[in-house]
Amino acid sequence: MEKIKNSAFTHVKFMDGFWKDRYELNRDVSLRAVYDRFEETGRFNALRFHHREGKSDLHIFYDSDVAKWIEAVGYLIENGENLPEEEKIIDALILDMEKNQLPDGYINSYFIQIAPSKRFTDRNCHELYCAGHLIEGAIAYDRATGKSKLLDIMKRYVDCIERYFVTEKIAAYDTCGHEEIELALVKLFEHTGDKKYLNLALYFINARGVSEKDESLSKDWNKKYDQSEIPLRNLSLAEGHAVRAVYLYIGMAEVALKTQDPELLDACRRVWRDIVDRKMYVTGGIGSGKTGEAFTSAYDLPNLEAYSESCAAIGLALFALSMQKAELNAEYGAVIERIMYNGLLSSTSLDGKAFFYENPLEIHLASVGKETSILPHRQIQLPSRHRSEVFGCSCCPPNINRIFARVGDFFFSRCGNAFVINQYAAVDYNDGAVSFTMKTEYPNDGKITLQIHKCDCKELLFRIPEWCEEYVVSTEYMEKQGYIAVSAGEKEISVEFKMKPYFVQCNPLARANVGRVALCYGPTVYCLERLDNDFELNAISIDTDTEIAVGDVSAEYGMRSLKANAYLDQNFGALYRKVKGDEKTVSLTFRPYYSFANREECDMLIWLRRK
Amino acid sequence: MEKIKNSAFTHVKFMDGFWKDRYELNRDVSLRAVYDRFEETGRFNALRFHHREGKSDLHIFYDSDVAKWIEAVGYLIENGENLPEEEKIIDALILDMEKNQLPDGYINSYFIQIAPSKRFTDRNCHELYCAGHLIEGAIAYDRATGKSKLLDIMKRYVDCIERYFVTEKIAAYDTCGHEEIELALVKLFEHTGDKKYLNLALYFINARGVSEKDESLSKDWNKKYDQSEIPLRNLSLAEGHAVRAVYLYIGMAEVALKTQDPELLDACRRVWRDIVDRKMYVTGGIGSGKTGEAFTSAYDLPNLEAYSESCAAIGLALFALSMQKAELNAEYGAVIERIMYNGLLSSTSLDGKAFFYENPLEIHLASVGKETSILPHRQIQLPSRHRSEVFGCSCCPPNINRIFARVGDFFFSRCGNAFVINQYAAVDYNDGAVSFTMKTEYPNDGKITLQIHKCDCKELLFRIPEWCEEYVVSTEYMEKQGYIAVSAGEKEISVEFKMKPYFVQCNPLARANVGRVALCYGPTVYCLERLDNDFELNAISIDTDTEIAVGDVSAEYGMRSLKANAYLDQNFGALYRKVKGDEKTVSLTFRPYYSFANREECDMLIWLRRK
Repeated sequence: MEKIKNSAFTHVKFMDGFWKDRYELNRDVSLRAVYDRFEETGRFNALRFHHREGKSDLHIFYDSDVAKWIEAVGYLIENGENLPEEEKIIDALILDMEKNQLPDGYINSYFIQIAPSKRFTDRNCHELYCAGHLIEGAIAYDRATGKSKLLDIMKRYVDCIERYFVTEKIAAYDTCGHEEIELALVKLFEHTGDKKYLNLALYFINARGVSEKDESLSKDWNKKYDQSEIPLRNLSLAEGHAVRAVYLYIGMAEVALKTQDPELLDACRRVWRDIVDRKMYVTGGIGSGKTGEAFTSAYDLPNLEAYSESCAAIGLALFALSMQKAELNAEYGAVIERIMYNGLLSSTSLDGKAFFYENPLEIHLASVGKETSILPHRQIQLPSRHRSEVFGCSCCPPNINRIFARVGDFFFSRCGNAFVINQYAAVDYNDGAVSFTMKTEYPNDGKITLQIHKCDCKELLFRIPEWCEEYVVSTEYMEKQGYIAVSAGEKEISVEFKMKPYFVQCNPLARANVGRVALCYGPTVYCLERLDNDFELNAISIDTDTEIAVGDVSAEYGMRSLKANAYLDQNFGALYRKVKGDEKTVSLTFRPYYSFANREECDMLIWLRRK
Repeated sequence: MEKIKNSAFTHVKFMDGFWKDRYELNRDVSLRAVYDRFEETGRFNALRFHHREGKSDLHIFYDSDVAKWIEAVGYLIENGENLPEEEKIIDALILDMEKNQLPDGYINSYFIQIAPSKRFTDRNCHELYCAGHLIEGAIAYDRATGKSKLLDIMKRYVDCIERYFVTEKIAAYDTCGHEEIELALVKLFEHTGDKKYLNLALYFINARGVSEKDESLSKDWNKKYDQSEIPLRNLSLAEGHAVRAVYLYIGMAEVALKTQDPELLDACRRVWRDIVDRKMYVTGGIGSGKTGEAFTSAYDLPNLEAYSESCAAIGLALFALSMQKAELNAEYGAVIERIMYNGLLSSTSLDGKAFFYENPLEIHLASVGKETSILPHRQIQLPSRHRSEVFGCSCCPPNINRIFARVGDFFFSRCGNAFVINQYAAVDYNDGAVSFTMKTEYPNDGKITLQIHKCDCKELLFRIPEWCEEYVVSTEYMEKQGYIAVSAGEKEISVEFKMKPYFVQCNPLARANVGRVALCYGPTVYCLERLDNDFELNAISIDTDTEIAVGDVSAEYGMRSLKANAYLDQNFGALYRKVKGDEKTVSLTFRPYYSFANREECDMLIWLRRK
């Protein structure tokens, strides 16, 4: 069933260009920034089991925060980076973990130190979620350094989990309230070749939605919230907590591919369609509802109130990456591209030190606090308008660390005799059998030149970006399922995806965007910030036939600025008036959405009223 | 300071036409429907002090529900209606009240029967709010029937209140959490001529926002919620619970006019401007936030989530009626007209039996339950899509009863030597000094003919409706502060306000309506219902230059239907696509907004995307 094999990031070396800058910013700034904040907030001490000595307030999922950071370090070292300090920190931490692992293999910093009698009694306490992230971290660290101590710890823990949940069935529940263990177990199977891990993943997939134990999380949430309402093979809608959902879908897809389970894979295809056709922001963000950090109803994509958690965008990209293995379908690469240049990039400040948890698609300062003005203690509020260095629930920052470290994973794959180019950047690629240099200014220019040094494939497939209407290929080609197919015999192949600004419109079922358009350039969604355009942004309307001036690549954010004329409503004192035209022409400066909120707080708008 | 004297509804007799139908529907159907539901739900038994015998679950503001119904009966009898059954019910009820009034004058069905030791200890328990409504009911019943027993009861209660709050200051708080007593005390002063009632009203106005007692309502709400944050003379924003706010503003305006307090009147003018310029729906509804039933931020006027309580629209109309006395300003009549034909009418079903508490400005069935899908027990939900016969908190239905009974109050006033015509309907008017017959098909036609039988005024002023751009007057006239001024010497005067369909646009600061227009005819806002237009309503766009066909007056809802061609987006499978035109022409049928939701549940939209 796994028709396509994705190429590992380790074969991809970014050369001068946009993604090299992002990769290095993560390596040189974000990784350290996350470490410092996690050290300050006691997350590392928690997993060092220093709680009794220190003052840290343990949180039930601190382990997962640290685990993702370890995973990021592992990927960077695997990429050939030299990170001796980080290795030292991790090695010492692993020793502490080893000392504190219980004789039966159990390891969890919260439950061992705070609530030893409660382990595996509350499925809303993220124990298997933490275990899953630690497994991912252990694998990455083992692969990177050959040091297997953490992996051994986690293998012992998985054996313990297997006893609690399968052999002895003494856990109070069958499945974890927050998915993650499923995909981690498949990775552990891939890394070790031991099928028991795949079987345990399958066990958790099969148990979900059919448990006879009381699996309700709380009186607040129904079973859709954590995807526990129905057997997973019957899923057709993406519902509930968005991060939990996509992490589960990744696990489902991986298990389906490894166990040859077409029914399970079809369920993945259905939820994929539900997300991509009805529940995904133009930035690739998902999970529009703050309440429950959840998917809401189809086409409910508010901009001002967008939740769109960074982890959810990352999860969707990884779900696409898994689905991409099932069949040659350019849509998976298109969604990954949408996320890469928009919803993923927006998560991180331009200086690399701060992160968005929620990623709003509009900022309107006058609306801030609208419902909370009378409600000092209530929860209804708009998403944060600035990135933060750390959060109480700080799952996103280390997730960002690990995804930028492995972003090369998104670029290439093999499909039979074809080598597939899914994403474009200036890279050197070498997996032993295939080796080439890709030269491009992407995403600032659509010209791509491949200098092929070695290739055991017959065919090269270039994904045609969703936004591209016209392209030129330097050699003979065929169009094939959304790809340009050329013979791999050439030494050099150029493809130019003609890049010019364009406007996107949204399905009118999405009420928030009715009558509005978003300006894009290549894969990048643009926005207006009021600091550059000192008008009420919602009073602007734009003619989609207007000429857009394409600027140079900005040193500030590494992409081009765009400029255009538009109309500004004027003389609007009254709340209502008979329709009349009273507008003046104004000149607008657009910047990539991802670069918003890097200066002082100001209004921001993606979806402009169409003239 | 009271430059203008409003003419009482008792001088206004509706002749065949739109308002006669509404008036009679209220008299013949709604009044009885509300009584029946209130009898069934124990509200009358509560105030009969039959709680110990019956099974009714008393509510802290049942008294106010019954009081408003008594007030409505009073107005109808004052209008010459014969309501012997209702009188019998009320007379018997008053006997029960008299028997149960405490020796010190205290009377409240909840506190006497349920919590006698708690009286005047919790300012969120609506005691003075109930007292205020009972005072209004008592005055109306006394005026209508000359039976003063209820009025005497309430006078004794006011003396008790005065002791508790002013003389002995033994109440736990200084001002009631829900305003109403202030305006009621001014009415009592007007009715009795006894200045002590005005002084007590002034006392409550002066005490608000400066109390040294703990006046916080609960941990949930801050002091803006019940307008207790700052001294009222410093108010500039309309904030907090919308009904409480406008009831307070009425009291403030009345006290300001009666006590010659320009500072207090200026505060009223400021909150009026804040409402009318920034916080009022096109229907005249106010209070857009479900949370706290409150005003939110300026220009925050969501349609789908509109709270827009019926009581709040009624309160705003009454606030306008009070403000209208301060100065000749056509805006007050314009806002009243907006409410009369839209936000007030929408409150009641066409059969007169059911009522809206919230009045949504859009219905989109696909969005129903969007946030609650994972939240079976939580509060976030859209307003009801159908009218109900009674509510747990059923303040609106009897408020509707009393406002339709006195709707004649909105029509005429005197300003020095001028007689002012603020609203238009087929009526006979006679106040002794002025007598005329007004013939018109308003709101279905803008032609108005006045046959003047008697007039001691020099001048007649016809308010020029806000929507009117062209008018014809049968005699010499001048335009004056938004009015047409003609000499009162003529026997017959005709004015025609040319009525044709027109589109309204909204200030672009109101994000919900950006790029959208509302079709109107005369004072009436129109909407699309999906039952008449089987399309996704948000996929429709309309050219504001399109020709609108004006239909005959519908027997169903008493106004004209409108028809127009528009465009429907087509072939929109994907969530996003490059901008392209793919539309077909469709024919639309519009009905007055107020008549929506009288058939089976369906989508409804006022604000259409502008082509």
